[in-house]
Amino acid sequence: MEPFVYQNPTKLIFGEGKLDTVGDEAKAALGERILLVAGKGSARRSGLLARVEESLKAVGLGVTLLEGVDPNPRIDTVQEGVRLVRRDRLTGLLAVGGGSVIDCAKGIALAAPHDGDPWDFYSRARTATKAPLALGTVLTLAATGSEANGNSVVSRPATGEKRALYHPGLFPRFSILDPVLTVTTPPDQTAYGIVDILSHVYEQYFHRVPETPLSDGIAETVMRTVIEAAPKVMADPGDRAARGALLWSSTVALMGLVKAGARGDWSCHMLSHELSGRYDTPHGGALAVVFPAWMRIGCKENLPRFVRFANRVWGIAGDGEGAALAGIEAMERFYTNTLKVGIRLSDYGIGADRIDEMARAGAAQNPMFPLFRLSEENVARLFRSAL
Amino acid sequence: MEPFVYQNPTKLIFGEGKLDTVGDEAKAALGERILLVAGKGSARRSGLLARVEESLKAVGLGVTLLEGVDPNPRIDTVQEGVRLVRRDRLTGLLAVGGGSVIDCAKGIALAAPHDGDPWDFYSRARTATKAPLALGTVLTLAATGSEANGNSVVSRPATGEKRALYHPGLFPRFSILDPVLTVTTPPDQTAYGIVDILSHVYEQYFHRVPETPLSDGIAETVMRTVIEAAPKVMADPGDRAARGALLWSSTVALMGLVKAGARGDWSCHMLSHELSGRYDTPHGGALAVVFPAWMRIGCKENLPRFVRFANRVWGIAGDGEGAALAGIEAMERFYTNTLKVGIRLSDYGIGADRIDEMARAGAAQNPMFPLFRLSEENVARLFRSAL
Repeated sequence: MEPFVYQNPTKLIFGEGKLDTVGDEAKAALGERILLVAGKGSARRSGLLARVEESLKAVGLGVTLLEGVDPNPRIDTVQEGVRLVRRDRLTGLLAVGGGSVIDCAKGIALAAPHDGDPWDFYSRARTATKAPLALGTVLTLAATGSEANGNSVVSRPATGEKRALYHPGLFPRFSILDPVLTVTTPPDQTAYGIVDILSHVYEQYFHRVPETPLSDGIAETVMRTVIEAAPKVMADPGDRAARGALLWSSTVALMGLVKAGARGDWSCHMLSHELSGRYDTPHGGALAVVFPAWMRIGCKENLPRFVRFANRVWGIAGDGEGAALAGIEAMERFYTNTLKVGIRLSDYGIGADRIDEMARAGAAQNPMFPLFRLSEENVARLFRSAL
Repeated sequence: MEPFVYQNPTKLIFGEGKLDTVGDEAKAALGERILLVAGKGSARRSGLLARVEESLKAVGLGVTLLEGVDPNPRIDTVQEGVRLVRRDRLTGLLAVGGGSVIDCAKGIALAAPHDGDPWDFYSRARTATKAPLALGTVLTLAATGSEANGNSVVSRPATGEKRALYHPGLFPRFSILDPVLTVTTPPDQTAYGIVDILSHVYEQYFHRVPETPLSDGIAETVMRTVIEAAPKVMADPGDRAARGALLWSSTVALMGLVKAGARGDWSCHMLSHELSGRYDTPHGGALAVVFPAWMRIGCKENLPRFVRFANRVWGIAGDGEGAALAGIEAMERFYTNTLKVGIRLSDYGIGADRIDEMARAGAAQNPMFPLFRLSEENVARLFRSAL
């Protein structure tokens, strides 16, 4: 194991009906005046947003609304949120939605106490000097992990960039994980969420650090749990037990435990951020394209780990490159047959003419512990194999 | 899954050499004047205590020493600590040792801001009305889990009682998990620690809550990691990788994740506390006696779970009661052959003449979700089978 610091202060409130606690939790953690952040309409249509707003007002909190956060949240929505926080002297934020809404709210929480352009924090032009505003979440989608970490990913459409930041003050004070709120997730979003959860684990699993039995075992348990729950929710979106298993898996996947003592790669997220940022490919779709291609190159660099992935996650016996490749193929079948998610660039309307552009952008990324180098040549080879 | 709230704010600092951070961490988290709490001499003899004391003084902190905490920590040591905190107006506590030292420090942290007898908090005669003092730990033994939770167990020799309490303010602000500090643990303490880690998982694993795949998987991963590391540290106490795996396992076993969505039993800890409290049996030894006997009764109440335990933890194929019993026997062999820990009451000098007394005391316990009722008859039967 590598040395590590693990600290995760988020209060995770899991269970059917736990939405009822939102007023009390917000009152205790977020101050008197709340920016309520939501997406493009599903929380409004389902009545969830009105219910949350009522709960906040019932305990005497002031509420300002910011709706319309995009699936790949945009920096201009962060800027708008900062404006509202200042205008109404808001004390905290409550994100109601999935990872996009939470990530947008985190950007607002970080930037609001500072003057200047919020994008500067994402571009690394500057770092935060003041504590972020307090943030709570009501999660409606099992996918992101953002409900229990200090990460935020935001896009800047003007330049096609999509960038991530981390700040320890961005861990939500509380996150309500109510499986009931996820049963109305449409099939495609459910499927993309499942790809996202698995991808978070992959990023942390294919490392070469020796003797990491516990983080490996937790990673494998999360993956198996997701793979087992997936066909249930795809067949019956109202299966609350399976929805609950997915929801808790999404949180455990990215709360810091899987990487404890290991080393995250995150090459594929960087490459898929390029796809989402430039071509507005759904995040889960981009990951479903990038990972199989990345694994076929990467498995030669760390064969024992890919054999273990095949053995313990996909139930494929055997060893050597044959078993490793069979594991990757099992994953691809799971994506295309069980989840109905495209795994080729062409499924998302991206053609060979984009390869050079993507290779240049990918090679500009700089992952900390990559399994293989993201040279222009390697990235082009990766994307060509995914056409 | 059952509804749950998971929150664990402790900063866990893992890695070889991380002891070097203790001064800075203490200064940031514990205030200006520290009660340094230690055990019966091993931290003193190894030079660890002097090293920690120097680190604290080097960053300008005042230090008051409380040494001599017993393996089953006693309420009079807690009382002495409270006296020292008041005398020197101390601002925080640093526990250097294993679970006993940490649990004693937690009792002091809880009681010091209050007047009256600290035992009242353990006997449930009263509850804390003021926030506990801040607490940090430097862990020297993989066993307790106390380094990352809000629990404290203390004995009262005058009455032979041993009682547990929980307070959310007792989570350590930080815990330093430096595997190097555990390589000098003597073989018997190492073995008892291993029994303790496994027992913490057992208490949370043999429940009947349906659909808990993630907590089950994490539990099984912790158990397998411990079972795999155990023969390595018993053969080579200096194996730092295996020591590290044990150390991290001890923390993950009891930081709240294994019970998330499930239901802890804790009958066996209550029964073993009786043994430790009355006859000063080592905690790990008492657990090694109680669990196999409890499992032989309990496996009839939840056979599928005990079959799973045999299959996934001990690698025993098959199903039905035969497989379940074979799993329990594999565990017993592991205790006696690998760990050299006694699993009979007679190994600890406790005879049949004590059965009635233990049965009465055991039946007075009141676990929240017991697999079977701790009636006097059941407890007597359990202990008779362990003579």
